[in-house]
Amino acid sequence: MTITGASGRPRDPEVDRRITEAAVALFGRAGWAGFNLEAVARAAGVGKASIYLRWRTKELLLAEALGSGLLDVADTDSGTLRGDLVELAHQLLALYMGPSRQAALRMAAEAPTIPEVAQRWDALRESQALAARAIVRRGIRRGEIPAGTSVTLLLDTLCGGVVMHVSSTPAHLQERLAADLDDYAERLVDFLMRAVLTTS
Amino acid sequence: MTITGASGRPRDPEVDRRITEAAVALFGRAGWAGFNLEAVARAAGVGKASIYLRWRTKELLLAEALGSGLLDVADTDSGTLRGDLVELAHQLLALYMGPSRQAALRMAAEAPTIPEVAQRWDALRESQALAARAIVRRGIRRGEIPAGTSVTLLLDTLCGGVVMHVSSTPAHLQERLAADLDDYAERLVDFLMRAVLTTS
Repeated sequence: MTITGASGRPRDPEVDRRITEAAVALFGRAGWAGFNLEAVARAAGVGKASIYLRWRTKELLLAEALGSGLLDVADTDSGTLRGDLVELAHQLLALYMGPSRQAALRMAAEAPTIPEVAQRWDALRESQALAARAIVRRGIRRGEIPAGTSVTLLLDTLCGGVVMHVSSTPAHLQERLAADLDDYAERLVDFLMRAVLTTS
Repeated sequence: MTITGASGRPRDPEVDRRITEAAVALFGRAGWAGFNLEAVARAAGVGKASIYLRWRTKELLLAEALGSGLLDVADTDSGTLRGDLVELAHQLLALYMGPSRQAALRMAAEAPTIPEVAQRWDALRESQALAARAIVRRGIRRGEIPAGTSVTLLLDTLCGGVVMHVSSTPAHLQERLAADLDDYAERLVDFLMRAVLTTS
């Protein structure tokens, strides 16, 4: 299937990518108050018409940009719960250490107040939550962790722990943090696996 | 000591409180892009001169408002590590469920880019982190948890878990969430205590 724009002409995926990347970066810098299609076009090096061919409004552009890259947390099945959780921690660490960091933080504060974007944000977070829950449920089915494991507690502390670790590290320690990410993801998962595997 | 404004007249703490509350609420709604002293004065029901008597710039007002209320996480010594951690979880839950929620989320995204506020934000977070670390260190000194406990992992997962739990709950479940907060704080702490008390 060829993706076509409103004009019916085939869309150039490379132009799409440049526009959505520029949209995410601008939103991260300026928030919704500073988000406008002129600035996105300029940063992407395209004409405004190229954007309007693809997205009728800035709400629709930002809603779609959200899905492509900003919140891509995929469920990969590595065969073990520990492996899957380490991979999930890695994906979140990459999101909050990478170029989308500012946009992700702003989105947490602003998404509920932006029309179109609010629904997309809710849907994305729900599908992420389902993917994360699927990881834990597989672990239970494989007998790796007890059937009574609290999926909510395990995922709150894993995902929240990652975000807190990255966002509470002061600027002058970010470089050391980046070098230590692999190690941190493994220590975090091992720590939480002990909580899950110990019956109270 | 009497607190005096720039005019040398004693300041009315009730007016101070109204202004800083209005400042936090406006910042939460509109972010830095929409933050201005006219709107703060209107919302607080005071004249703009009352604000200028106290704060020369909007940066200084927001920086001070941050400290009074928005980020008040106090270190209380309940006598046990479990009690102290439950209290810490409660304070964070109250912050992210209460009227300061929007401002706290926006601050995480925007503080680093606002002059004056950035330094104050860093200092506040550092003093919070020190208070939280003091709680865990007391637990180690009292022999409640092993000396080798990772303070970072315990606090990342406790504080991050709270924030994730509150912010990942969709709007239509917020009421149920509020009713369940006490219970959640205790289950979260017990879960993490198991991780800490189990040697790998």
